Amino acid sequence: MAGAQGGWVLTATARSPTNIAVIKYWGKRDETLILPVNDSISVTLDPDHLSATTTVAVSPSFDRDRMWLNGTEISLSGGRFQNCLREIRQRARDVENKEKGIHIRKEDWEKLHVHIASYNNFPTAAGLASSAAGFACLVFTLAKLMNVSEDAAALSSIARQGSGSACRSLYGGFVKWVKGEAANGSDSIAVQLVDESYWNDLVVIIAVVSSRQKETSSTSGMRDSVVTSALLQHRAEVIVPSRILQMEEAIKNRNFGSFARLTCADSNQVINTVERWSQFEGAPQVAYTFDAGPNAVLIAPNREVASLLLQRLLFFFPPPPDTKLEGYMVGDTSILQEAGVHSAEDVASLPPPPETKDKNNVQKYPGSISYFICTRPGKGPILLSEDQSLIHPVTGMPK
Amino acid sequence: MAGAQGGWVLTATARSPTNIAVIKYWGKRDETLILPVNDSISVTLDPDHLSATTTVAVSPSFDRDRMWLNGTEISLSGGRFQNCLREIRQRARDVENKEKGIHIRKEDWEKLHVHIASYNNFPTAAGLASSAAGFACLVFTLAKLMNVSEDAAALSSIARQGSGSACRSLYGGFVKWVKGEAANGSDSIAVQLVDESYWNDLVVIIAVVSSRQKETSSTSGMRDSVVTSALLQHRAEVIVPSRILQMEEAIKNRNFGSFARLTCADSNQVINTVERWSQFEGAPQVAYTFDAGPNAVLIAPNREVASLLLQRLLFFFPPPPDTKLEGYMVGDTSILQEAGVHSAEDVASLPPPPETKDKNNVQKYPGSISYFICTRPGKGPILLSEDQSLIHPVTGMPK
Repeated sequence: MAGAQGGWVLTATARSPTNIAVIKYWGKRDETLILPVNDSISVTLDPDHLSATTTVAVSPSFDRDRMWLNGTEISLSGGRFQNCLREIRQRARDVENKEKGIHIRKEDWEKLHVHIASYNNFPTAAGLASSAAGFACLVFTLAKLMNVSEDAAALSSIARQGSGSACRSLYGGFVKWVKGEAANGSDSIAVQLVDESYWNDLVVIIAVVSSRQKETSSTSGMRDSVVTSALLQHRAEVIVPSRILQMEEAIKNRNFGSFARLTCADSNQVINTVERWSQFEGAPQVAYTFDAGPNAVLIAPNREVASLLLQRLLFFFPPPPDTKLEGYMVGDTSILQEAGVHSAEDVASLPPPPETKDKNNVQKYPGSISYFICTRPGKGPILLSEDQSLIHPVTGMPK
Repeated sequence: MAGAQGGWVLTATARSPTNIAVIKYWGKRDETLILPVNDSISVTLDPDHLSATTTVAVSPSFDRDRMWLNGTEISLSGGRFQNCLREIRQRARDVENKEKGIHIRKEDWEKLHVHIASYNNFPTAAGLASSAAGFACLVFTLAKLMNVSEDAAALSSIARQGSGSACRSLYGGFVKWVKGEAANGSDSIAVQLVDESYWNDLVVIIAVVSSRQKETSSTSGMRDSVVTSALLQHRAEVIVPSRILQMEEAIKNRNFGSFARLTCADSNQVINTVERWSQFEGAPQVAYTFDAGPNAVLIAPNREVASLLLQRLLFFFPPPPDTKLEGYMVGDTSILQEAGVHSAEDVASLPPPPETKDKNNVQKYPGSISYFICTRPGKGPILLSEDQSLIHPVTGMPK
């Protein structure tokens, strides 16, 4: 084991949020520097629900740079990691820790190696933009450890080289990534439009859908979750077989109406639910967009509307039988109380929403959503205390 | 160069279609064997528009198995390639080619190496399910070369081990992938429900959208296309800046209506267009689903409806200025004629569809779609003639 015998270990630990683009970036004009062809705007999500936490440790006893992600060692050889490390190391300054009797001079940093431990408080496999939080946190934590004086805008330009959208996770609230003009990317930075307190009644609900992703992806994340396994099994045993039979009938009878209904039903019903509601009311009730994967991200203007949204979501996408509400609705679940939903029984007694045309013949989709995450706009990266370090202060290895 | 000096080269070349799931597979009960938790149903697409072509060559002079994909050599070390190769090799039989004076005995196959060349007639980066066509074609071609006697169902079970959805590309028409029960996956096979002539008036239109994919993916495919670059540039220079300004205004004024409209507009407008139309008519006009990426796949019951659909798609998603219709609408473009659209000028003079509420204030989205592919249900894999080989018959290397 590459411990830290005989040497000191110095650490810094920080937490960074993820973000969801509301105006997305559409392509890159430079793949290596990750320079986009257009500006984009995102909302930073509350790190209590979706964030990366990273500890960077430095010790004269470390013989090489190493990194552990969610407990598993990963290679740091990728260009994106190397770019971020190099850029921060070039800006490193003198560090003095009198308490530990450590003095690192600016020029020492080039010879010192780091151990990095990082974890996400949300499933990577859910298709949420974990790389945004991860690279933002890596750069922010490295900069803290190495006493870098650059501001958030300059750090955002470095995080951008790890993962484009990571630059927007250096701030809370609403953030704009300015595409910039310079060939070296120096002006392709993120700036804060307004902080998280400015429009603080917004509620963000993420519907984690796994079907489309699963149709082609080989990730194995879903196997790990007991909650989703139960849902998966229910869908596999109860919902899909009946749809398969109906689809076979539709094809054999060349029944296009039934074919279309079944095909679309296997597609994105969350958006349909929202669109029906907005059309009924004559104005958009909630905003929606998509994350990296097929997950629908819904944004309600306030808790009252969020409560009406949750009633609809739970009516059309109820947790499967024998599933508790906890685990199906995670994050800030206090809105559930406001929606009058305290248990799976309450879900079962929800009435069809007013925009439902034929209230006696409603199609519900239990099991088509893995789970919902309730969250809100949140703050940018913060430094955590030493007792929250992910790396052991003596061995220099992940705890 | 590992040529075939002094030895013979024997080749087989075949073409296999891709497929789009209309009932998707939701998860795997076995990641290695790729055994799904539920049955799925797909429609095979016309290989003239979307297919993989693969040549497998064998020669005593080859010193190892090698593969080239779209002209670039790729590693065959992955478990999925190895599983397919091993399964077919185990079933190889005697092959005699009198014309070339070649006799390969069943037991020789274990010692002989293969060169594989494959290409897709559609951009891999478009997010379309290229692995389905690719693995189906690899298995089908290997089986032809090695004189394997197993039927399509048995081959589908082998292709499944390369990429789950590949098993459904062994047939034309509508195909069901039966999940099976056996732990070794022997009964997890694809079966044909009806062939491609059974329901042959269906029209499939794929809207290739790249925004969401680009927001997080690092693939570089789009750079390669001149057509999409022009579109990208137009969006970057004209459309996005105005949306960025409007979004900044909306955030600063906490104007939720405008915020929601802009956020959703940057999301999936194709589905909105279809939903509005269906709701106006009171019945589903076209079916829609999604592919691996964010691309919308639309299925119309016949050419007449497809023609009405195309008019709507081109009205709301016109090609950007200075873009020709060719390149923006690819595949079977004969429906364009039926829709009365012969040029970009015809697109500009399309009237708003009847379901448009405020005909004087219509929001269009030029540049938000990269291009459309018009296709139809198609046939399964076919063997091609020697002159269509992708591998040189003397050197044994890709042409």
